[in-house]
Amino acid sequence: MTVRALVFDVFGTLVDWRSGIADAFRASGVSGDPEELADAWRARLWPILAEVNSGARPWGNFDELHLVTLTDLLSERGMDLSAQERSRLVGAWHQLNPWPDVRAGLDALRRQRVTAALSNGHLALLVDLARHGDLRFDCLLSTEMWRAYKPAPEAYQTPACLLGVKPGELMLVAAHPADLKGARSAGLRTAFLDRPLEYGPGSPAREDPQADESVGQLHELAERLAS
Amino acid sequence: MTVRALVFDVFGTLVDWRSGIADAFRASGVSGDPEELADAWRARLWPILAEVNSGARPWGNFDELHLVTLTDLLSERGMDLSAQERSRLVGAWHQLNPWPDVRAGLDALRRQRVTAALSNGHLALLVDLARHGDLRFDCLLSTEMWRAYKPAPEAYQTPACLLGVKPGELMLVAAHPADLKGARSAGLRTAFLDRPLEYGPGSPAREDPQADESVGQLHELAERLAS
Repeated sequence: MTVRALVFDVFGTLVDWRSGIADAFRASGVSGDPEELADAWRARLWPILAEVNSGARPWGNFDELHLVTLTDLLSERGMDLSAQERSRLVGAWHQLNPWPDVRAGLDALRRQRVTAALSNGHLALLVDLARHGDLRFDCLLSTEMWRAYKPAPEAYQTPACLLGVKPGELMLVAAHPADLKGARSAGLRTAFLDRPLEYGPGSPAREDPQADESVGQLHELAERLAS
Repeated sequence: MTVRALVFDVFGTLVDWRSGIADAFRASGVSGDPEELADAWRARLWPILAEVNSGARPWGNFDELHLVTLTDLLSERGMDLSAQERSRLVGAWHQLNPWPDVRAGLDALRRQRVTAALSNGHLALLVDLARHGDLRFDCLLSTEMWRAYKPAPEAYQTPACLLGVKPGELMLVAAHPADLKGARSAGLRTAFLDRPLEYGPGSPAREDPQADESVGQLHELAERLAS
């Protein structure tokens, strides 16, 4: 079956959240290692998304959930930040820089096929990130639109339906094997895009032997899919 | 209240559906005036959308509804077309040309503010139209995403929520007073964009004295909103 459309995970796959969030911690004046704080904040995301998907917590968008997880993190460490500073940190997720290959790589892929962001981040956040990085997609899809966070199956099937393609004609591009696994379970094709610096130098090595494609940057994926 | 984001009606406001659909009728070889057939087909859209909004008809996307209304139209006139020809006519709605000011006008407005398409057309159709006309939006919003066709109030309120703005910070740009009226009832700001050729030379004159802005092209709106 031909790949007719591509959907892209955003945080970690297209944008470098760690540098941007560490910079924001640095600017906030809190004590501690800014990179370690960024990692610890990010690590709190998956459990809270799972709470939402399970029904244990009502729907919240990324701004709301980031504020909850930041408050928990600071409280656990006995640190304090004003509401204004916490709000500024939550806002830093809207201004993250893309990895160097992303802008031109997306353009190359969009010349071949329909391209869409597919993120657990809410739409207003994705709009800000796309504007900040001057990233052009055919459209932005947020799991907020159908209120089921990835890796729930409908988080991959609904985009196929909205884009008018069969799940097997849709390929998820992501740096995270758990996301790719969820997509495959829903019938999608998958491309693993390695981001060896997502967690800074010395990030744990990742691979996904089950993926249809494994590449180191978006241009490489464009070449593979063109041939 | 400042206008923070703009949403654009698509059919008639940004793209010239009449010429494209008349050309498709011409190519199909059916007898009759192609422009008149295009008008008659388009006129059948509003009643069927109202049937969906009232619950009298289950949800259908534009491809599905266009096929129903085309079949009704042909049958009423005792005309026949193969399934393949009917499907080609339905597909013509995916390949309509934008009005001449649209591509550059959208770019100018997108430099000022968040811009999104807001159409009753389904997302896959909007993607095709944006690709066909090389139109760049920050995102595409289809009422398909929340299954309430304009002019239902939620068709205007949900976009505000998704874009993270208050209804009064969102402006609908449209050529159709009924659409603008629906938006105002939902608390949005409105801009009337005159498209005197939507129904060809001799189209009925339209105006909307209630609109916040009334303009003849998108560049004019960009100038008004910049000042």
